[in-house]
Amino acid sequence: VREVAAARENRVYLPGVRLPAELELTADLQLAARCEILVLAVPTGAQREVAGAAAGQGRGEGRRVLCAAKGYEPGTRTRMSAVLEAEFPAGTGIAVLAGPSHAEEVGRDIPTSVVVGAVRESVATAFQDLLHTSAFRVYTNTDLLGVETAAALKNVIAIAAGICDGLGFGDNTKGALLTRGLAEISRLGEALGARPETFFGLAGIGDLVTTCTSSHSRNRRVGELAAQGLSAAEAVARTGQACEGIETTRSALEIAAEHGVELPITEQVAAVLFAGKAPAQALAELMGRDAKPEVR
Amino acid sequence: VREVAAARENRVYLPGVRLPAELELTADLQLAARCEILVLAVPTGAQREVAGAAAGQGRGEGRRVLCAAKGYEPGTRTRMSAVLEAEFPAGTGIAVLAGPSHAEEVGRDIPTSVVVGAVRESVATAFQDLLHTSAFRVYTNTDLLGVETAAALKNVIAIAAGICDGLGFGDNTKGALLTRGLAEISRLGEALGARPETFFGLAGIGDLVTTCTSSHSRNRRVGELAAQGLSAAEAVARTGQACEGIETTRSALEIAAEHGVELPITEQVAAVLFAGKAPAQALAELMGRDAKPEVR
Repeated sequence: VREVAAARENRVYLPGVRLPAELELTADLQLAARCEILVLAVPTGAQREVAGAAAGQGRGEGRRVLCAAKGYEPGTRTRMSAVLEAEFPAGTGIAVLAGPSHAEEVGRDIPTSVVVGAVRESVATAFQDLLHTSAFRVYTNTDLLGVETAAALKNVIAIAAGICDGLGFGDNTKGALLTRGLAEISRLGEALGARPETFFGLAGIGDLVTTCTSSHSRNRRVGELAAQGLSAAEAVARTGQACEGIETTRSALEIAAEHGVELPITEQVAAVLFAGKAPAQALAELMGRDAKPEVR
Repeated sequence: VREVAAARENRVYLPGVRLPAELELTADLQLAARCEILVLAVPTGAQREVAGAAAGQGRGEGRRVLCAAKGYEPGTRTRMSAVLEAEFPAGTGIAVLAGPSHAEEVGRDIPTSVVVGAVRESVATAFQDLLHTSAFRVYTNTDLLGVETAAALKNVIAIAAGICDGLGFGDNTKGALLTRGLAEISRLGEALGARPETFFGLAGIGDLVTTCTSSHSRNRRVGELAAQGLSAAEAVARTGQACEGIETTRSALEIAAEHGVELPITEQVAAVLFAGKAPAQALAELMGRDAKPEVR
């Protein structure tokens, strides 16, 4: 915080983007505990601790919290919105931010469209009113479960896309992978009770396309490194950043097993990341499934 | 044909890919007229003439024709399958090939998944049996109308994606554009009677992703050149290849008008290509539509 405050720039994660003069920087979570509106942009593994410290003692009514992390709490596979519901006082408006929005581009005013998911539409529209600009367009979706599921699982498909890239496969391969990836994500989401149309929105196809093709995607990069033979831990060490997709791979398979849903791509990603399976073999098995009718 | 036959390579369009020794090259369409199985890979504008010459006089039963062109007949906006139905004897099995399959990659055995659309499932599976290999995976879909609509319209969205790239926009912008592009394509398709799930298959999202992100995509390239201020004709002259998306833009708008469907992206592409609208203005108007609920 001291470094960023002195430089008015995050030189590690967002070099070249000057922070607005009105932005105050602090490491004091007591300040957050007194704020009516919070945006929590910390990794999934730190969400509960930070939320607990920022929650404060007051009433929840009138307070609103927006979560920018995409994934499940490691170990408990709890959705981020449920972590916030548990930590903040009852009545707090809980929302999540999703959609294709790499910070490297948002920070440079490159046109970006995002979606705020919240069960209560008034909570979603409050964040829309607060954050919407001509370059940062905010849509709303009351299918919170669908938005969170799509946002989390696309990181797993992005690792698979990175493996694809790392093996030297092409644009044709990636188009097919994303098609099956979206089907896999929406299959799990619908089994959990999410609405199909959410997966064809910004949190679904939108973020999937961007995460699977962008040079900014950390999850895709981890897949590329895995294709070169690095383990999950080695790949994370190399990129030096959190990669939510790794933990999401574990969580998604557990959730899918509970609901009797098959996730063929996620299973192969897990085998590569955690069981030392050869990436080429994993991709070959994915591609090698029997040809069948797509729509009969 | 003489040049390709001598070199055993198409040095203009597919340099570096050696043609199989068993492939016989000829410009004699009388030979085609005697073939039981035909693959017609000519531009949409040449489809009727070539089909007519290749149709022959015999019975249609037992003959099968697969069309690789994506788009509508210029001027009449007739679907390719309908052109073939009209030109070939009654009973001929008509099918179309779609999905993410740039020839530059297929020719190098890069893993590719495609879909054969045909009203009669037996026709689709016959081509599946004929063409399916470990690197070229063929799925089937009996929603021929949906496959053709998706395959055609994705080229228009690819021009928009190229405009986006040419203006220096980013991966976030493209993710949002593709989300809206797929919604636009499926809205028209469903109005025509196509099945929604087709647009989330290989001919829909699969080909859309690949065409909008690949360096091999001619339609995307035309959009990039349009963003630099070239007219449609100038852009085509520069790329030196057919760009089906230009004619499809006209056809799609006419078909949409007949069915009372709005195509906002296609309208802006048309304004840029045919009416000299500034690309930045077109993109701004697209992005500038009112923010609203994505799913309520």
